[in-house]
Amino acid sequence: MAQPSVKLTYFDGKGRAELARLLFTYGGLPFVDERVPHADFPTLKPTLPLGQLPVLEVDGTVYAQSTAIARYAAKLAGLCPSDPVEALKADMFSCTLSDLEGPFVDIMFKTKDETEKAEKIKTFVEETVPKSFGALEKLVQGKFILGDKLSFADLQFFDVVENKLKWGIPTFSMGAFPKLAAVVANVKAEPKIAAYLSKQ
Amino acid sequence: MAQPSVKLTYFDGKGRAELARLLFTYGGLPFVDERVPHADFPTLKPTLPLGQLPVLEVDGTVYAQSTAIARYAAKLAGLCPSDPVEALKADMFSCTLSDLEGPFVDIMFKTKDETEKAEKIKTFVEETVPKSFGALEKLVQGKFILGDKLSFADLQFFDVVENKLKWGIPTFSMGAFPKLAAVVANVKAEPKIAAYLSKQ
Repeated sequence: MAQPSVKLTYFDGKGRAELARLLFTYGGLPFVDERVPHADFPTLKPTLPLGQLPVLEVDGTVYAQSTAIARYAAKLAGLCPSDPVEALKADMFSCTLSDLEGPFVDIMFKTKDETEKAEKIKTFVEETVPKSFGALEKLVQGKFILGDKLSFADLQFFDVVENKLKWGIPTFSMGAFPKLAAVVANVKAEPKIAAYLSKQ
Repeated sequence: MAQPSVKLTYFDGKGRAELARLLFTYGGLPFVDERVPHADFPTLKPTLPLGQLPVLEVDGTVYAQSTAIARYAAKLAGLCPSDPVEALKADMFSCTLSDLEGPFVDIMFKTKDETEKAEKIKTFVEETVPKSFGALEKLVQGKFILGDKLSFADLQFFDVVENKLKWGIPTFSMGAFPKLAAVVANVKAEPKIAAYLSKQ
């Protein structure tokens, strides 16, 4: 199969595009990493399939939805388990992380009042995240979520912790979740990921 | 591969389990369709991986997250496109439908004040849904979303329209989206789906 010509378009930040960047990078798949200034977005918006970024252009056709784009990148990178039950485990993990996105975006980008924001962060850090992470900690089967073999869920977990939780809530700690903390460290130590991170 | 022993557990309703039921049914995959009375949930909750229903037991191990369960069912039913770009199209469609879930659940199950509820329904039906469906309408490639071949995204679309939107908002109409309306009708006419629906 010929290598597709791929261009990922997003703002100049990590946000909803970094997971796809990590997956393409891990897979050694060349892609154009187009960064759009926020000021250009109003002009761009009407041309986008869903009026949103990121979008991915594959051989000239433009697709939207960050999760769909990440799945495509994961498939090309060989990070989607072929066994249906292994894929179910990875997907269960992935969906649980996605469930944290709503409250996180609400706190970070929609809650303007500082007192209200502090209260929401407290609930998120002391209740919401521990509830999910406590369950996920029990599912980790080894060096990575599925054991020895890296999957897209490991890179998604790394992205959620390093680029979202620790970015938005600098006091956030993984101390209570040693297996999950090890997954993050193991992803970070993967040579292609380490090389990518060292350039940032 | 031996047929896995599968049990789907949910409340006695469609909700977050019906898509998996439709996918297993379409795939001709036998599964135990366990329905739990609401009164039994408090006892069951602490035993569930994430404290939530639905769960799927596969050969004795219990997995959670409705989207992960539906993907597993879709894989077994042969409804996940093997071509990465076709899968990207189906996933883009699927993610756009999932984005409607948050506001829909908020309106139906969290908004108690009737005036507020009516206002939210108005915005949802007149703005939110048309924005998504207008974009999705342009993506439909034939009898089904991807053309001639049924995929999980078609069954998901059917479930969202028939079991969620039309159930929650009886006045909801697909009139403005003829291609999407045809997808719903074509799913309904699939012999295995038609047989399943006739028994309800």
